[in-house]
Amino acid sequence: MSRQAPPARPVSQDEHGQLLFDVFAQDCPSRFAMEHVTSRWGLLALIALRDGPARFNALRRRVSGVSEKMLSQTLQALERDGFVHRDAQATIPPRVDYSLTPLGEEIAGRLWLLIEQLEGRMPAILAAQERYDQAKSAR
Amino acid sequence: MSRQAPPARPVSQDEHGQLLFDVFAQDCPSRFAMEHVTSRWGLLALIALRDGPARFNALRRRVSGVSEKMLSQTLQALERDGFVHRDAQATIPPRVDYSLTPLGEEIAGRLWLLIEQLEGRMPAILAAQERYDQAKSAR
Repeated sequence: MSRQAPPARPVSQDEHGQLLFDVFAQDCPSRFAMEHVTSRWGLLALIALRDGPARFNALRRRVSGVSEKMLSQTLQALERDGFVHRDAQATIPPRVDYSLTPLGEEIAGRLWLLIEQLEGRMPAILAAQERYDQAKSAR
Repeated sequence: MSRQAPPARPVSQDEHGQLLFDVFAQDCPSRFAMEHVTSRWGLLALIALRDGPARFNALRRRVSGVSEKMLSQTLQALERDGFVHRDAQATIPPRVDYSLTPLGEEIAGRLWLLIEQLEGRMPAILAAQERYDQAKSAR
C-alpha cells in the first residue's frame, strides 16, 4: 500500500491512440491501482465507505485489526487514485471525513459483488480446505 | 499468500444455524480466502486461468514478474481453497496442468469484472493522481 507508483506509463496505445492498460504487465500503472483497491485494508476501507461518509476513528473501528498508520496510508493512496474524498474542516478539534467519490463508488460496487460471492461460498471453500488437508495428511 | 489460515472458525450463526461469514471480522476464515484471491499473484493467476488450463511455466510467463516460489505458493493456496485444480501426470518429465474449478470460475469471473472496470477507468485514475500530486506540491 505504501509502495509508490512509478511515473505513469501506460503499456501501449491502440490504433486510435487510445491508451491501453494491462494489469498483467509488470510496470503498468493499472497494477498499482489494482493493488490499492485489493489490498487487505484498501478493500475493507472502500467497502466500509459504501455505508456512507465516515470519520477516521469510525473507519478504524469498522476495519477490524488495522493500525492507525496503515489506515492512514491506505486512505492516502485511495485519495490519490481518486477513489476517496477527504474533507478536512478547520474546527477545533479538526474534523476529517472520508467518503467515496463517484469513481470510488463504481469500484467499491464491483468489489462488493466479489466479497458477497466469496462470503456466500465459504462453506464450499472450507469443505475444499478440509479435503485438501486430509488428502495431504493421508499421503 | 503463504500465511496459513487458522482453523476454520466462522464468526457466528444465524437463527437457522446457518454459518455467517464476515470479511470485516479479523479472524473470519473468509478474510483469508479473500486475501488469497485478491493478492497480487492470486488475482493474476485466477484471471490467467480463465483463458483455459495451463502448465506451470506458461502461467509463470503470463503472470509477469512472479517468482517460481511465489507462483507455486499461490497456486497451492488457491488449490486448497478449491479454486484451482492441479492435475499431475506421471509422465517423464512429469506434466502438471492447472485449471479453474467451477468455484474458481465464479470467483475469477467477479474478479475480471473488477479488473476490466479498473483498466477502463485508468485515465480518470491517472488524472486524479496528477491533481493530487500537484495540490500536494503547491502546498
